[in-house]
Amino acid sequence: MVAIGIDIGGTSIKGAAVYSDGKMLNTFSLPVYRGDPGEKTVNDLIDLVEKYIKEHGLEKEIAGIGIGIPGTLDVDNGIVEYSNNLKWENLPITKLFQKRLPYKVRISNDANVAAFGEAKFGAGKGVPYSIMLTLGTGVGGGIVLDGKLYEGNLGKAAEMGHIVMEYNGRQCTCGRKGCLEAYASATAIVNDTKKAMEEHPESLMHQVAEELGKVDGRVAFKAARQGDKIAQQVVDQYIFYLSEGILNYCNIFRPNLVILSGGIANEGDYLFDKINNYLKVHNYGYKKTPEVKVVPAKLGYDSGKIGAASLFFK
Amino acid sequence: MVAIGIDIGGTSIKGAAVYSDGKMLNTFSLPVYRGDPGEKTVNDLIDLVEKYIKEHGLEKEIAGIGIGIPGTLDVDNGIVEYSNNLKWENLPITKLFQKRLPYKVRISNDANVAAFGEAKFGAGKGVPYSIMLTLGTGVGGGIVLDGKLYEGNLGKAAEMGHIVMEYNGRQCTCGRKGCLEAYASATAIVNDTKKAMEEHPESLMHQVAEELGKVDGRVAFKAARQGDKIAQQVVDQYIFYLSEGILNYCNIFRPNLVILSGGIANEGDYLFDKINNYLKVHNYGYKKTPEVKVVPAKLGYDSGKIGAASLFFK
Repeated sequence: MVAIGIDIGGTSIKGAAVYSDGKMLNTFSLPVYRGDPGEKTVNDLIDLVEKYIKEHGLEKEIAGIGIGIPGTLDVDNGIVEYSNNLKWENLPITKLFQKRLPYKVRISNDANVAAFGEAKFGAGKGVPYSIMLTLGTGVGGGIVLDGKLYEGNLGKAAEMGHIVMEYNGRQCTCGRKGCLEAYASATAIVNDTKKAMEEHPESLMHQVAEELGKVDGRVAFKAARQGDKIAQQVVDQYIFYLSEGILNYCNIFRPNLVILSGGIANEGDYLFDKINNYLKVHNYGYKKTPEVKVVPAKLGYDSGKIGAASLFFK
Repeated sequence: MVAIGIDIGGTSIKGAAVYSDGKMLNTFSLPVYRGDPGEKTVNDLIDLVEKYIKEHGLEKEIAGIGIGIPGTLDVDNGIVEYSNNLKWENLPITKLFQKRLPYKVRISNDANVAAFGEAKFGAGKGVPYSIMLTLGTGVGGGIVLDGKLYEGNLGKAAEMGHIVMEYNGRQCTCGRKGCLEAYASATAIVNDTKKAMEEHPESLMHQVAEELGKVDGRVAFKAARQGDKIAQQVVDQYIFYLSEGILNYCNIFRPNLVILSGGIANEGDYLFDKINNYLKVHNYGYKKTPEVKVVPAKLGYDSGKIGAASLFFK
């Protein structure tokens, strides 16, 4: 079985044919210009998909076209209600595809399909229950239960970054205060790093930032590894917040695995050992509770394409 | 189709035959003496179940026996690992039943089956996605997704009261600090009420408590309804905490319905209007997000029996 998986991002659209064993053919891609009418971009995309399918001689094999999209979707009716990244509004993307191509189309949130890809063919392969948290500008993610993507009412579930962890805490982009996103996103650790650097001109973080040419999510981790106490405080606080968020999801879902993706997830054992050790001690009823492992994602940018195509696999 | 649903509690065990349309025959019950060996209690229960099935002539119809149990279970292997209420430890309850009766047996957490009963035949009837929170000594509950009970790895999911809502907040019974349970349980509002009464000898709550003969979860609500400002503060703070917890679950699951059970859920419109109004304003992306309703449970103490039997219904 083969399906087309498409991952729509803020600056480009990428897609590929994916087989039901997770193997992927070559990737096609299309730049996206923010502000372009959605209908034009989608029609360009359909041209490209049509050509790709023809080139690979897949016309008779395609089980469907799965599309991961950032924004608020009506999954049941195949409509992009609003995408801030793309400036699309009320775009009936499924209808546009089906007007021109004879294939089934399913859309889903971009973070959801990435989680599904990782669960099916990446870090979560073979595991029934997994949660993915994507630590980027915000905190996104997805939920895979008993091998199936969980999407909730109208496909709007799994706003993983938007659980309040501190009443009246840091202002979150969603309007509430104290959401996990405000503590555990890459944006959050960058802000924490900048604040600590201001307060501590002696910290090694200044030198690291100069070497890297900017203050990003890596600065505190790099300086912490080299023994800088202030950087260690920044990292430890960040990991504490993140671990408490993960613990919440463990107590709700009791997953086999928690997968972390995004830039921060590249920090290796230094990050994952600390989180896993925290969980070992604080897991609810930890002696009687199955151990949960926190691991990095494996598929990188392919998870979205693979996950989107996987919407058609059993 | 008919199944036996059994609800094991700390002081008594109740059960009944339940049909797949939710209709229930008369209830049998057995007192439980804490400290009695679990094996003895279970064998007494089996005697009773056997007699009940014979009396009702159900021998050939029974699809199975479902049992809701408070404590830590190994659902897959039918073992009560530990129940603090019952003082049972490593009790192979399914095996004990199957040694003597020729029926399938399934066990599940008592809060989970109560949520399942409410979802199938109570407040959540006809609704695919519902969450139940039970506001009692602690905060328990269950998750029903696409009409099925969600139990997670080894049946240990849905510890609904144990998500941290305030870092380093109130001490929770589970060992962590700041869990929802520490703010939204009946125990929590009783503590809040007592504290406010100590600080405010002029509050109407003193008079209400005297009338009721004790300080319980009703005192603050009753005085608040009569206009007592201090009681209103206690209630408003409680509802704020509870609503934020519910919002977390909405953002994760995007359910159609949130069902509240336990004594506090009897506080009627005064409680539910406040919660629903809070959610209308604070629901994530609320204008683009399907409205969720928060409603009281309907089945009372029957939810456990009905839910336990429902483990055998499609």
